[in-house]
Amino acid sequence: MSDPAVTPAPAPDAGERFTIGVDFGTLSGRAVVVRVSDGAELGSAVHEYPHAVMDAALTAGPSSRTEHPVALPPAWALQVPADYVEVLQHAVPAAVRAAGIDPAQVIGLGTDFTACTVLPVLDDGTPLCELPQYADRPHAYVKLWRHHAAQPHADRINELAHARSESWITRYGGLISSEWEFAKGLQLLEEDDEVYHRMDHWVEAADWIIWQLTGRYVRNACTAGYKGMRQDDRYPDPDFLAALNPAFAGFVADKLDHEIGQLGSAAGTLSARAAAWTGLPEGVVVAVGNVDAHVTAPAAQATSPGQMVAIMGTSTCHVMSHDELVEVPGMCGVVDGGIVSGLFGYEAGQSGVGDIFAWYVKNQLPGRYAEEAAAAGVSVHQYVTDLAYAEPVGAHGLVALDWHSGNRSVLVDHDLSGVVVGQTLATRPEQGYRALLEATAFGTRVIVETFAAAGVPVTEFIVAGGLLTNRHLMQTYADVLRLPISTIASEQGPALGSAIHAAVAAGAYPDVRAAAAAMGAVNRAAYVPNEADAAAYDRLYDEYRQLHDWFGRNGNQAMKRLRALRHDVLGSAP
Amino acid sequence: MSDPAVTPAPAPDAGERFTIGVDFGTLSGRAVVVRVSDGAELGSAVHEYPHAVMDAALTAGPSSRTEHPVALPPAWALQVPADYVEVLQHAVPAAVRAAGIDPAQVIGLGTDFTACTVLPVLDDGTPLCELPQYADRPHAYVKLWRHHAAQPHADRINELAHARSESWITRYGGLISSEWEFAKGLQLLEEDDEVYHRMDHWVEAADWIIWQLTGRYVRNACTAGYKGMRQDDRYPDPDFLAALNPAFAGFVADKLDHEIGQLGSAAGTLSARAAAWTGLPEGVVVAVGNVDAHVTAPAAQATSPGQMVAIMGTSTCHVMSHDELVEVPGMCGVVDGGIVSGLFGYEAGQSGVGDIFAWYVKNQLPGRYAEEAAAAGVSVHQYVTDLAYAEPVGAHGLVALDWHSGNRSVLVDHDLSGVVVGQTLATRPEQGYRALLEATAFGTRVIVETFAAAGVPVTEFIVAGGLLTNRHLMQTYADVLRLPISTIASEQGPALGSAIHAAVAAGAYPDVRAAAAAMGAVNRAAYVPNEADAAAYDRLYDEYRQLHDWFGRNGNQAMKRLRALRHDVLGSAP
Repeated sequence: MSDPAVTPAPAPDAGERFTIGVDFGTLSGRAVVVRVSDGAELGSAVHEYPHAVMDAALTAGPSSRTEHPVALPPAWALQVPADYVEVLQHAVPAAVRAAGIDPAQVIGLGTDFTACTVLPVLDDGTPLCELPQYADRPHAYVKLWRHHAAQPHADRINELAHARSESWITRYGGLISSEWEFAKGLQLLEEDDEVYHRMDHWVEAADWIIWQLTGRYVRNACTAGYKGMRQDDRYPDPDFLAALNPAFAGFVADKLDHEIGQLGSAAGTLSARAAAWTGLPEGVVVAVGNVDAHVTAPAAQATSPGQMVAIMGTSTCHVMSHDELVEVPGMCGVVDGGIVSGLFGYEAGQSGVGDIFAWYVKNQLPGRYAEEAAAAGVSVHQYVTDLAYAEPVGAHGLVALDWHSGNRSVLVDHDLSGVVVGQTLATRPEQGYRALLEATAFGTRVIVETFAAAGVPVTEFIVAGGLLTNRHLMQTYADVLRLPISTIASEQGPALGSAIHAAVAAGAYPDVRAAAAAMGAVNRAAYVPNEADAAAYDRLYDEYRQLHDWFGRNGNQAMKRLRALRHDVLGSAP
Repeated sequence: MSDPAVTPAPAPDAGERFTIGVDFGTLSGRAVVVRVSDGAELGSAVHEYPHAVMDAALTAGPSSRTEHPVALPPAWALQVPADYVEVLQHAVPAAVRAAGIDPAQVIGLGTDFTACTVLPVLDDGTPLCELPQYADRPHAYVKLWRHHAAQPHADRINELAHARSESWITRYGGLISSEWEFAKGLQLLEEDDEVYHRMDHWVEAADWIIWQLTGRYVRNACTAGYKGMRQDDRYPDPDFLAALNPAFAGFVADKLDHEIGQLGSAAGTLSARAAAWTGLPEGVVVAVGNVDAHVTAPAAQATSPGQMVAIMGTSTCHVMSHDELVEVPGMCGVVDGGIVSGLFGYEAGQSGVGDIFAWYVKNQLPGRYAEEAAAAGVSVHQYVTDLAYAEPVGAHGLVALDWHSGNRSVLVDHDLSGVVVGQTLATRPEQGYRALLEATAFGTRVIVETFAAAGVPVTEFIVAGGLLTNRHLMQTYADVLRLPISTIASEQGPALGSAIHAAVAAGAYPDVRAAAAAMGAVNRAAYVPNEADAAAYDRLYDEYRQLHDWFGRNGNQAMKRLRALRHDVLGSAP
């Protein structure tokens, strides 16, 4: 299952020091060996999770070996914690071999994880799904970030928080996600109280993996803040929890609260067991756990106020630091030290970006485009993008709303949906595609403007993630935002960010900002605004804003009513 | 060029009487032999126009035989009048042969034509394009209905009519079309005044063909009213025309005004020359000319108030009669005797219907649908329709505006464009297709409600044209309109309607209504509303109306501004 890849580089000097960053994604984990002096990536390896994502039935546990595996309801998404350990056992040693270094040269190891990805464990860290009596119980497994079956629980939390005017709700743009610790925890209590009561900790996978490496449970400040509603050293209080469900009153005290570790700090050192797994020396420093999006900021040298990092893939996550605490309407969250210790870390998001483009290509593009792309030897996305950008801004006569997957920031409303205005009998498929690319840029501009209006100005927009390879899209963002667009210069941004945190934790740099300056990699201002195009995009953006406010802010509740009708005629079907 | 087709029928009785209907379409003419007693269609034949539509260059005249044929500007569409005569020479005798009747049994001949299709002729009916000195002059040829190059002239006419509060403008929903006689006439004057001054008559092709058959020029009341702005026996006055252009002051008196013939009357009898062309006896009665959409009403037995006929093809034309003259906002026109003599004939339209569906299939449907349709042995339209209707009303969660080709009735605004609201990542291509089918039904409901509100209630909706074969679409119209949908039972509705007019002109029936009752063919109430579906459609229609009014009635001028931006960035390009 290992897939070692060698990055050509000079043979490492025996005196050099290295850290290892391990990025735990949704389907696999990737280890990268990074040189501490300059961030050069010397070798990497990927290990796929054997059980991937379990979203239809349990593929682990005794039932999975029978004809009747335990089925999972809609919107569930589980994982197997042992799969994560395999990444340590396979990808880390393979990356070290690929880099051609001596394991003794490794001074630190850092990790990042998807979040909120959370599991119930015993006091010693044993996942409940590894106890024989719970191996066929879905609630004993890891709930992946995209497990969305706790939406009713999230709805209740939000309603109650607003009814009680809880102060913390404004730190999350007014809406807690069904993905987060409290919604998933409440679902666990109410659907499998035996497992709930048996667990000693409801732990982020980001921290569980550190526990496996070091033997110590340290709760990272990032997920505690963004996913665990920890604000100003406090969580929602027992009264609030009891009002949700009396049996939930002790959730924080009994299951959640724990020693906090700041990002870039050492959580501990490699245990003998983990040293055996990884082939690294016992005692190597292990950094506090972190989150994939947030750890990418230092990898892109974006650790200062004004620098917004967008990790653009199927969706976009925006992270930025600022030196003051303000409440930005519609943000996903603000956490003290949530990205870089000592600054307030802000997060925002667009819930549909690349997946909207993929939806369009799969569902709204005639077959001839795939044939022509194949003939031209380029991807369909590349082909249709090039076609779409063969004409000037505004020539398509279209404006779209990018809400096919709802709107995260700044409207925080997942019942919204997509819109296209302006189609004629002359509208070509690539024009509709471009309108969607542009719509995501307009959505980003709404976020940037909202941050600025709240007192968090954005002066540079830095892109990481798969979409940065689309040059037309990047130029569109530069023009629409009227900001320089920098792009991360590593293809393994999260792993590089983890390696940077490892270097800080190991003492090679005084702080994350210094390490990022030396080890991070960015193409500064790779795209700059074109004034003429920016002016034309301003006119399209004016249209976008009017549609945005009308459909998104109670001008016309058509999207809600269309959803209600759909629900009425389909009954309980999805 | 003849394509005779035999409709199996019993051998005709030697004592039976027949009429012939000839439908002059955009690309060909079709003759049908119809039994007077019951409307049975015994034989038909089609003849294609040798020059079809000339829209890029003249393919007639001396230049067409050189390397440099005369080029035509954008939006031009010309035809050659001699092509129409060929239909009489080929299709009529072929239809008589196919029917197996004796030409002596034919008592009348009727015709219908596209409109406004208009040409300049001498006092004896000779088309100016047949004079050698004008054979290479584009303006000497027939201007087909879809010649749209007179839009600037139409704009001036409309602006001036509103500025002067001309009473006739309200009879046309407030907007004269660039397709009609005055706009095309003004273009002729201003672009080729030699041809303009040389012509003795600016004549509808619908009347010119009757002139060829009978030797007499009779101007039919239908085109005079709908296309020639003749209202209450008057045309726009010389003052108005002079204000457009002093040289245009005499347009009505010099070029347009002429004896009016009522529909169903005899224009004359077959001349010796036309008898030789057609193989019919000299002296056969020839009916006053008519228009393809309007003549279809009696073919579908829709001659009474309350019966709206929709000819549904690439676009939809609605015609209905009513016993009072009222002004319906946004109608295309109301003309005394415009459909049936003795009643006021109303016309409305939807400028995009089948062509929107075709646009979607061509531009927004993935290749797999064509493959699956081919494998299933059905058309793509049929395949995607069946898929789309496999779920209940409203399950797609979408609502669309059907304005891809602008809006004819009731907004009368061709700068509007299409909208889709409600797309998600789960939206399937067939759902978008169904939303467009439904949007056209909602557009029809707006028209029906506007007529009813103005005092012209619709009690039965009768469909002719190619789209009536889509059973799901027809049921949707029944449900959305909450009206019984009848469908014409002839595949050659216009030709049958012309044969009905011929029977009346020949005295076989006292009037068109009586002839229609005996000879017309309709499947009465072929579709009736389903109450549950109608209720669900009501909810979608509410959404449609809100979008309709917001985008169409100055709530949000986005469509106009998107068009303006497009124009600004493309310059003079289309």
